[in-house]
Amino acid sequence: MTPVPLAELNAMDKARFVATLGGIYENSPWVVEAVSAQRPFASLTALHEAMSLAVQKASDAYKRALIDAHPDLAGKAARAGTMTADSEREQSSAGLDRLNQADFDALQRLNGAYREKFGFPFIICVRRHSKDSILRQFELRLHNDGARERDTALGEIVRIAALRLDQQVSAADRLKVHGRLSTHVLDTYSGRPAAGVGFELHELSSTGEGRLVAQGTTNVEGRTDAPLISGRPIPVGRYELRFAIGAYFGGTGAALAEPPFLDVVPLRFGVAEPEGHYHVPLVASPWSYSTYRGS
Amino acid sequence: MTPVPLAELNAMDKARFVATLGGIYENSPWVVEAVSAQRPFASLTALHEAMSLAVQKASDAYKRALIDAHPDLAGKAARAGTMTADSEREQSSAGLDRLNQADFDALQRLNGAYREKFGFPFIICVRRHSKDSILRQFELRLHNDGARERDTALGEIVRIAALRLDQQVSAADRLKVHGRLSTHVLDTYSGRPAAGVGFELHELSSTGEGRLVAQGTTNVEGRTDAPLISGRPIPVGRYELRFAIGAYFGGTGAALAEPPFLDVVPLRFGVAEPEGHYHVPLVASPWSYSTYRGS
Amino acid sequence: MTPVPLAELNAMDKARFVATLGGIYENSPWVVEAVSAQRPFASLTALHEAMSLAVQKASDAYKRALIDAHPDLAGKAARAGTMTADSEREQSSAGLDRLNQADFDALQRLNGAYREKFGFPFIICVRRHSKDSILRQFELRLHNDGARERDTALGEIVRIAALRLDQQVSAADRLKVHGRLSTHVLDTYSGRPAAGVGFELHELSSTGEGRLVAQGTTNVEGRTDAPLISGRPIPVGRYELRFAIGAYFGGTGAALAEPPFLDVVPLRFGVAEPEGHYHVPLVASPWSYSTYRGS
Amino acid sequence: MTPVPLAELNAMDKARFVATLGGIYENSPWVVEAVSAQRPFASLTALHEAMSLAVQKASDAYKRALIDAHPDLAGKAARAGTMTADSEREQSSAGLDRLNQADFDALQRLNGAYREKFGFPFIICVRRHSKDSILRQFELRLHNDGARERDTALGEIVRIAALRLDQQVSAADRLKVHGRLSTHVLDTYSGRPAAGVGFELHELSSTGEGRLVAQGTTNVEGRTDAPLISGRPIPVGRYELRFAIGAYFGGTGAALAEPPFLDVVPLRFGVAEPEGHYHVPLVASPWSYSTYRGS
Repeated sequence: MTPVPLAELNAMDKARFVATLGGIYENSPWVVEAVSAQRPFASLTALHEAMSLAVQKASDAYKRALIDAHPDLAGKAARAGTMTADSEREQSSAGLDRLNQADFDALQRLNGAYREKFGFPFIICVRRHSKDSILRQFELRLHNDGARERDTALGEIVRIAALRLDQQVSAADRLKVHGRLSTHVLDTYSGRPAAGVGFELHELSSTGEGRLVAQGTTNVEGRTDAPLISGRPIPVGRYELRFAIGAYFGGTGAALAEPPFLDVVPLRFGVAEPEGHYHVPLVASPWSYSTYRGS
Repeated sequence: MTPVPLAELNAMDKARFVATLGGIYENSPWVVEAVSAQRPFASLTALHEAMSLAVQKASDAYKRALIDAHPDLAGKAARAGTMTADSEREQSSAGLDRLNQADFDALQRLNGAYREKFGFPFIICVRRHSKDSILRQFELRLHNDGARERDTALGEIVRIAALRLDQQVSAADRLKVHGRLSTHVLDTYSGRPAAGVGFELHELSSTGEGRLVAQGTTNVEGRTDAPLISGRPIPVGRYELRFAIGAYFGGTGAALAEPPFLDVVPLRFGVAEPEGHYHVPLVASPWSYSTYRGS
Repeated sequence: MTPVPLAELNAMDKARFVATLGGIYENSPWVVEAVSAQRPFASLTALHEAMSLAVQKASDAYKRALIDAHPDLAGKAARAGTMTADSEREQSSAGLDRLNQADFDALQRLNGAYREKFGFPFIICVRRHSKDSILRQFELRLHNDGARERDTALGEIVRIAALRLDQQVSAADRLKVHGRLSTHVLDTYSGRPAAGVGFELHELSSTGEGRLVAQGTTNVEGRTDAPLISGRPIPVGRYELRFAIGAYFGGTGAALAEPPFLDVVPLRFGVAEPEGHYHVPLVASPWSYSTYRGS
Repeated sequence: MTPVPLAELNAMDKARFVATLGGIYENSPWVVEAVSAQRPFASLTALHEAMSLAVQKASDAYKRALIDAHPDLAGKAARAGTMTADSEREQSSAGLDRLNQADFDALQRLNGAYREKFGFPFIICVRRHSKDSILRQFELRLHNDGARERDTALGEIVRIAALRLDQQVSAADRLKVHGRLSTHVLDTYSGRPAAGVGFELHELSSTGEGRLVAQGTTNVEGRTDAPLISGRPIPVGRYELRFAIGAYFGGTGAALAEPPFLDVVPLRFGVAEPEGHYHVPLVASPWSYSTYRGS
């Protein structure tokens, strides 16, 4: 789907404007309608803030309707195929469309308990979370009182809207919704970037299993041609970078033991800021390595 | 079994000397007989070298008989319970008495191929190896020619004998048959040893599964009260040390993200010298760590 | 002096072309004349290579004249103020115009010994060297035989010409005559770039004294706004970067001892490749630091 | 001077006891007399605490006399050679007997200002300080009020006494008056201790000059045969360890540039706890190094 230029949105008649952005807030075109007359917007940020303000100023009934317009996570609508295309893509990005039975059951149990306590569906900006982080947030938010939880839900809805705007509208400015995860391998045996090092990035579940999310080989600068994750939030979660540093040093002619002291080096780290920059380098010789949160 | 003092061995009559040390070389008391008249031995080293020389000088027929006196690994004798107690303990130390079906089948296939090629059982000093390292050595040695492989087998027999002597005889000197694996955790956030850090040491199989071989908590010096492995060879293999450094820093009052950048830190390394000293420290802040082969 | 565009050079009549580039090879306009007819040059590289080839193909008498056209280092011409402006700037960049008496005497002694042995002046591309590195090269090259030394001198002349071309001509391509020295400070106490860290870069003499060549404060990314050295070769030599890391950590509220364990951290390193990229980061907590040759 | 065993002290008649320990508190044998009847002391600690308590319980006049019994630092008594042998040795240990003119003048000025404000001599346990740290404490303590400064002076007198007791009496227990400064060099290029690395330890003055306090070569374990400082407090101050790591790696056959990236590596650090353990290791390859406060 090609993004619509902001200038075009500014020039549309109201009906077309609402039709184009009606899905930014799930099944709630009234949010877009509310800001139509404020056009032209000078920036994507201004458009996003206007819609966010419209939600904030809406009556309690409208706020509640906005919340109710969202589907359960991995719920009935997902099984029936009646979610909006946006929701479908988002739930899929966190793996909610391919849960194992235990996770599926956990989610149904949480959906039920949550609806029973609050009377509305659990809403979270799933693109900012891994599956485990969603389950954890679910558990934590069940402890909130109703007023606080309604505000939390609305806050998540605004985050969802920001990400949808970011994908569907092009403009000179960008919303601050992207994080970046990158790496760099330095060879302290030879004093140069480590080129040609195979690596994998795994997202770890709470039970320690990994889901491969990126892989490749370092370039001549010891970096990757593109960040491992960029152009989107980094899902909150736990990760492991694995570097085939034994194979690399074996290939440079360094004398290695069998098995080598260092072969596949795992760097395990957590991401807590989805919009943050995480640079996780590996500085290694055949007998030592270090890492740190870089920038 | 209490070790016998060397002085006592020196003072025994020949029959008792042979009865006492007859099992050092598997089912082959002739090796002990051959050195009985050289007593008194000034040191355990001298006793070991004399027996090793007796093997080296023996006729081909005796050498071959010595090799044939050994049981297959995880073979018929193991299943029938007819191995010597020494062999039983040794094979158990590498987990050969509790193989999964795939490993058991692999070993039977290798035993068969090896016997067919060389006509004698595969002998390896199993206390110097992990299960995976045994399988790997087995594969490698199948490529040897007969003469080289006979020498390799005799070399392993001498290593087995050294370890048995080390356990069964006490003397002022010790044979160089022990390795040492140790660790140390330094806290570079506070500039002091990291006390109370939970850790585990796992031996990794080729498929990445871990077998817990040690666990504990660092003491006030950031060290362990005893080395993780000592008083025996370190089995050749791949290991992973895991440190609960997130819980440690959380306990010191450092402000951590949720999830923390560093939680459980895995250090994965290979051991190639069973009699070596491997010191694998963790030098960590909440946002960085390094390790190296220390001493 | 504004660089002349390559296109302009290509369009000039021969006299103006020679007048414009006549000084690229010291007092030797014949080199430029020799390539005038090859115009237009597609790139600066092509122009440089053509002139370099002209030198290489010249007769021995011309080569010798080219060498003789150069002044001594810190010699009579320098004192008399009769050097070309280019030579003056170059000798000044390595501090040859403000030598202490001991260095001046050493240079006169070397100039004399060199002239006596080879019969021509010592030529070195001084912008690629520190004062100490020049003295060291001088000593080393006195051991060459005449033929080898003549070739070495011509090689240095070509390097001098490349740097002059780089400054005096603009084109789409650049000659590979620039190195880069940069740094980066990471704070592993807080997991972020260390902003506002004062630093100094000193060039060290053989006697350990430092000459300040750059100083500043790290920016919000923990970097410097521009590389410490760029747009020119990094003089071969020994350097020390000093970081006021104690003041930085004191300012972040970390509890420091008095005096702090780390206050001013010196990183001392050598540069051997004037056209190389040297990235020398500091990764530090109040109780630890590391550095490495990065990229 | 051979230490006197505690048992002997316990068995002496009073006169001899007082004569033996009379100098522990400078020119004030009454402190020893006061505890004579409490003999036998079970430990050196008990003896020290008894004398310290006697000082604490003494009348103001006695306390003041005790303070007045001490000489100025580098003062008239020092010049006249009329200090006790203990004071002479102590002042010499901090270099107070060989001050340059500027430091001497500073000290005279401080002595004068201090006497004028407080009416008694400035007392500090000089063995716990470097010259610079003494000057700094002097400046700081000039800001105290009289009561606080008298208590500070008495506290220092007790520290002086503890160090004198530690040297002059032998017992099963030791007073906690010793610090330890040690190092260790690890070679991450070869994965082993770095043996044969030349090193120097300098105490740095505020103006950056170094005073060599220890030097040597690492042993086969990459350590020094004895700690760099032990058996005494580590003087509060700033230090620099210098390691000839370039020469070391050159000797191992590693390919180094000329000049090498790392040649002499300086580690500069401060000591704030004279009775602490400072372990300052160097973990290095030819292209990287790290250090930290270890244990």
